Amino acid sequence: MSKHDAVEVIVAKRDGAELSDSQIDWVIDAYTRGGVADEQMSALAMAILLNGMNRREIARWTAAMIASGERMSFASLDRPTADKHSTGGVGDKITLPLAPLVAACGVAVPQLSGRGLGHTGGTLDKLEAIPGWRAALSNDELLAQLGEVGAVVCAAGDGLAPADKKLYALRDVTGTVEAIPLIASSIMSKKIAEGTGALVLDVKVGSGAFMKDAARARELAETMVALGKDAGVHTVALLTDMDTPLGFTAGNGIEVAESVEVLAGGGPADVVELTLALAREMMAGAGVDDVDPADKLADGSAMDAWKAMIRAQDGDPDAALPTAREQHVVTAPSSGVLTRLDAMAVGLAAWRLGAGRARKEDPVQAGAGVVWHARPGDEVTEGAPLFTLLTDEPERFDRALESLDGGYEISTSSIAGADGGASYTPAPLIVDRVS
Amino acid sequence: MSKHDAVEVIVAKRDGAELSDSQIDWVIDAYTRGGVADEQMSALAMAILLNGMNRREIARWTAAMIASGERMSFASLDRPTADKHSTGGVGDKITLPLAPLVAACGVAVPQLSGRGLGHTGGTLDKLEAIPGWRAALSNDELLAQLGEVGAVVCAAGDGLAPADKKLYALRDVTGTVEAIPLIASSIMSKKIAEGTGALVLDVKVGSGAFMKDAARARELAETMVALGKDAGVHTVALLTDMDTPLGFTAGNGIEVAESVEVLAGGGPADVVELTLALAREMMAGAGVDDVDPADKLADGSAMDAWKAMIRAQDGDPDAALPTAREQHVVTAPSSGVLTRLDAMAVGLAAWRLGAGRARKEDPVQAGAGVVWHARPGDEVTEGAPLFTLLTDEPERFDRALESLDGGYEISTSSIAGADGGASYTPAPLIVDRVS
Repeated sequence: MSKHDAVEVIVAKRDGAELSDSQIDWVIDAYTRGGVADEQMSALAMAILLNGMNRREIARWTAAMIASGERMSFASLDRPTADKHSTGGVGDKITLPLAPLVAACGVAVPQLSGRGLGHTGGTLDKLEAIPGWRAALSNDELLAQLGEVGAVVCAAGDGLAPADKKLYALRDVTGTVEAIPLIASSIMSKKIAEGTGALVLDVKVGSGAFMKDAARARELAETMVALGKDAGVHTVALLTDMDTPLGFTAGNGIEVAESVEVLAGGGPADVVELTLALAREMMAGAGVDDVDPADKLADGSAMDAWKAMIRAQDGDPDAALPTAREQHVVTAPSSGVLTRLDAMAVGLAAWRLGAGRARKEDPVQAGAGVVWHARPGDEVTEGAPLFTLLTDEPERFDRALESLDGGYEISTSSIAGADGGASYTPAPLIVDRVS
Repeated sequence: MSKHDAVEVIVAKRDGAELSDSQIDWVIDAYTRGGVADEQMSALAMAILLNGMNRREIARWTAAMIASGERMSFASLDRPTADKHSTGGVGDKITLPLAPLVAACGVAVPQLSGRGLGHTGGTLDKLEAIPGWRAALSNDELLAQLGEVGAVVCAAGDGLAPADKKLYALRDVTGTVEAIPLIASSIMSKKIAEGTGALVLDVKVGSGAFMKDAARARELAETMVALGKDAGVHTVALLTDMDTPLGFTAGNGIEVAESVEVLAGGGPADVVELTLALAREMMAGAGVDDVDPADKLADGSAMDAWKAMIRAQDGDPDAALPTAREQHVVTAPSSGVLTRLDAMAVGLAAWRLGAGRARKEDPVQAGAGVVWHARPGDEVTEGAPLFTLLTDEPERFDRALESLDGGYEISTSSIAGADGGASYTPAPLIVDRVS
């Protein structure tokens, strides 16, 4: 197949032209097979980042990546399917309570996930804190578990969109991650190939998110929603705040524990709010409108589904979670209202404590992470614990403390009723909805 | 040396920032040593192509490429030195008469040249048509020949600007050739490292040139002149026309023959004009103003220098040049004045006949090429020869003829004195001078 050549395609995009369907099909296929070299694809990725792609190009690019591998089908299930994808945030453990909750509501959740890289944690890393739990399932195991339990969180196999896998690794080392057409096509090619019937996208915006800027987050959400709809997947996106981390924990084992609190009917208000909002979108997308997921949290059926889901992948949901060997407490330097808790600062601290990895092949610590004892809007007292830092390696504390430096603000004038101070109201968690 | 990392440098340029001296030094050094991968450098090259570099960045980039290898010095010579670089044109054999002519005028010419790729021929390919002549000289041989003969045309050694050599090969396959900062730094790093005292740049503009557009050609010329001056090299650029090919020949042996005509005091008027203009610039740059190069063509001393230069590299200047085994004549389809002869059409035809190469490792035919029997402004007669196509492989004629199709125009109304027709005046050869 020498219908095109790599330089021709690169030069076309470099010079601002639209790529033809034939050029896109050729370049993705040739790249997957090795006929287009990494140095050619990275130049093309940079040209796409700087010159953009229109909707038709992005749709074709996504279709070509899907065509590079296998497509799964859940048509044999007796239930509709719905999946959720988050663009990544600090303390974002939502998948853990969400998947069993939606399963308990009668919608099957095939959640193919990844590991974390950088300051946002990976869902698989969190679940691997549970003794015995395994991330790798064959396609047959996945389908069987979906039928029996209704929820699966597992590692995406190599068969789905191999072009994306190769391109994602390349973008990571060539400064071409931040291209909306490439982000959107990367996420959506895997989700469409996976075969879910409905999809809810949680697009994070704020300091701890990949997208710092609301306009770009909205553009990404709109692009992905359009791609999903074109492919016949019922797709909705929520834009949600990531200036502040979710809940009170960022790490692996400690996020599992917080998720179990939610499944037990408690847990942080923001985690509960976002879990329920996403669950309702998934159920609406799947066409189920006669169940309120809040009831399934209250009556214990979401917890039952969680335990079944963990046991199906050889995990023990009742076993004690691993804890860190060392801890360091940061106390509040003054009394007042916490008005800012920076998600990026917390995420970096957790990462530096060993909860995340710098390179793909690095291990993570199951017990490491950051617990914060107040959220924006809460009053804090001088000398009382504000953060607890957890790690197995105490030499990590110094750099984690550096990350937190300047990452929060305590305002004395914002105490409700204090002289001249307006009371502080945190920003809303759910910023917008794109459908 | 891990002061920077590749993604940081790529992202800075991608986002429109100026690269610091330290970033530029690091990335060129690391790329030369293999610490920055090809796929990272190609992404950076694309970002440079689309976002540009300012004068300081280009100067530093050039200096870093020079620092990647050895620098030569001609300080031990008893004469000043001057070199010429052409950005490449069709029928551009000017180096062949120019180097011995300037040597005959008392200025030493160290001309490190390359082979051709694509539709413009390479100086070394042309000289290799001369029986026995060899392009490869050691630095000691080069210096000795400069002292004895005063002129050397040879292959650039691997020691000069190895970063450029690696980057040039990469740009060729990644659609990043056409970046003025990268073109300028590539040319100037080699010329500055070579150690010439004066440099004249022949920047071609027109259909057969790398730069089709006068504004971009001028920008390239200004960029290179500034780089040369900053490095202490007396540098001047001429912008010259390349809508029309030079002389009457494009090929290897046939261009040597045409060059020898010029050295013998004859030859095409445009080749003589450009050779003398460049010679005068080189001499002025070298500070020699008491010799008229036209006299050295007329009195045979340029021819003597030519023969000495060829013999010094084991060539036989009196041997018959190789000729093509097959020829095909194209006759004029009508009578009138030739008003257009397209350099790109002629260059492609010569390339397709075997005078040039598609890949670096391909051989070229010494006898192949195109001879045209009229230049714009000349009258032609229906049925008389217009082109002679030369090759060893007659199956090449068809594609060469395709290239020529539409590549020339004959106007009946432009015959001087014909009813209502204005007489046709070709465009000037030397368009502008940048100093």
